[in-house]
Amino acid sequence: MTPDLLNPDALEDALRQIGAERYHSLHPFHRLLHDGKLNRGQVQAWALNRYYYQAAIPVKDSWLMARLGTSELRREWRRRIEDHDGCVGPDGKSMGSGIERWLKLAEGAGLDRDMVMRADQILPETRFAVDAYVHFVRDRSVLEAVASSLTELFSPTIISERVSGMLAHYDWITQDTLAYFTPRLTQAPQDADFALTYVKRLADTAEKQQAVLGALRFKCDVLWSQLNGLYLAYVSPGMIPPGCFVPAPERAAEATCA
Amino acid sequence: MTPDLLNPDALEDALRQIGAERYHSLHPFHRLLHDGKLNRGQVQAWALNRYYYQAAIPVKDSWLMARLGTSELRREWRRRIEDHDGCVGPDGKSMGSGIERWLKLAEGAGLDRDMVMRADQILPETRFAVDAYVHFVRDRSVLEAVASSLTELFSPTIISERVSGMLAHYDWITQDTLAYFTPRLTQAPQDADFALTYVKRLADTAEKQQAVLGALRFKCDVLWSQLNGLYLAYVSPGMIPPGCFVPAPERAAEATCA
Repeated sequence: MTPDLLNPDALEDALRQIGAERYHSLHPFHRLLHDGKLNRGQVQAWALNRYYYQAAIPVKDSWLMARLGTSELRREWRRRIEDHDGCVGPDGKSMGSGIERWLKLAEGAGLDRDMVMRADQILPETRFAVDAYVHFVRDRSVLEAVASSLTELFSPTIISERVSGMLAHYDWITQDTLAYFTPRLTQAPQDADFALTYVKRLADTAEKQQAVLGALRFKCDVLWSQLNGLYLAYVSPGMIPPGCFVPAPERAAEATCA
Repeated sequence: MTPDLLNPDALEDALRQIGAERYHSLHPFHRLLHDGKLNRGQVQAWALNRYYYQAAIPVKDSWLMARLGTSELRREWRRRIEDHDGCVGPDGKSMGSGIERWLKLAEGAGLDRDMVMRADQILPETRFAVDAYVHFVRDRSVLEAVASSLTELFSPTIISERVSGMLAHYDWITQDTLAYFTPRLTQAPQDADFALTYVKRLADTAEKQQAVLGALRFKCDVLWSQLNGLYLAYVSPGMIPPGCFVPAPERAAEATCA
């Protein structure tokens, strides 16, 4: 049975419904993180693994940009890469970047910067999910690649919860440590608005609309699977795969937060 | 520090050591499966997800065959594809194939054949790990692609344990249901012998040897991550991701096996 062609607003509703059912804000690991229920080693594992995702974003955006076809579209998409990779000022110094701010977060959690950047202790689930995202954007249609970015529609809420929750519950985390998230609160909606408008305009057949919905489901799986890996390895039952990051033993005072 | 160049036998020892430390026979899910500690729904989840892996094997082998460069090598590698995809006899009927036998296993476990083949209820960990394997074989050097098949060095032991354990512990599983595994006991060593000889001969620099060892570690992660996904979703803590297979409730007599 072929699904009906939706009008653009009904397509948007269907996209938002996927977020309501599958966005990783619903995952138990995120609830533990935001409610201050994780110990420092567990937050470190999250920051370490999530770095691999952050570092892959400008890679997938470069693949997409290579296929967009016009200067206008590439300029729009280039802003995402600038947000993550940063720019260098007239003095030759970095003016800050999303990846740089994520490294600050990881260092603030007590991790060694070089270890984080090597990414040789991340979980296999992280590597496979993130690589799947990069390959999806490279290999699928431009429409699906754009649609897979639409999880940003849902990110401002989770970011607000995360920042306020982590500041309230972890005394070793400061506003400065979480500086990554502040610009995301304005960048993500701007990016998502563009992508949503693009998708609503270009998905003009039922088949394309189903592809768009499938792309967003896929991306929700990419985010969800990363938290599955963290939960299994570092929360319950605590099965850390061979070769992956093992947190240092907690001091007694910290362990009570676990 | 550059690692030393190993002689071929020392390289083989290093490969076997990776298996001893990282092969998925060590994963808690496999111990539960072989010891009869899983209920029928958990075995179904395993059979369903593992089908996606089985179905991808001739795909990754086709990518590799396309790059082997000589008829001699392609003939050798083609046998793997024949094992999994099967051949058609003079009467036009299938003479049996690994994928067909895996579907029999899944049906024997009580799953619907079409649902298994659609693979739309598999775990994201399964999809991402299996796709990572296909992409690895497509994108890395031929040497690394061949080396990633070397987990077959370790599979006869796990297959023997699995077959005898499952027959002993699950009264609803028959020798016929497990027919997939019988030919694998001879196919896998034949395949592994060829791949091992190839790798020992061609990995003639320290750099290539490290790439070979990395490829086998990667492949162990591919197998391990699939069991991680199954464990988290269907054993403990039982977090089935949105949209994935939900086993039917067990009857009381079966539930006591859980």
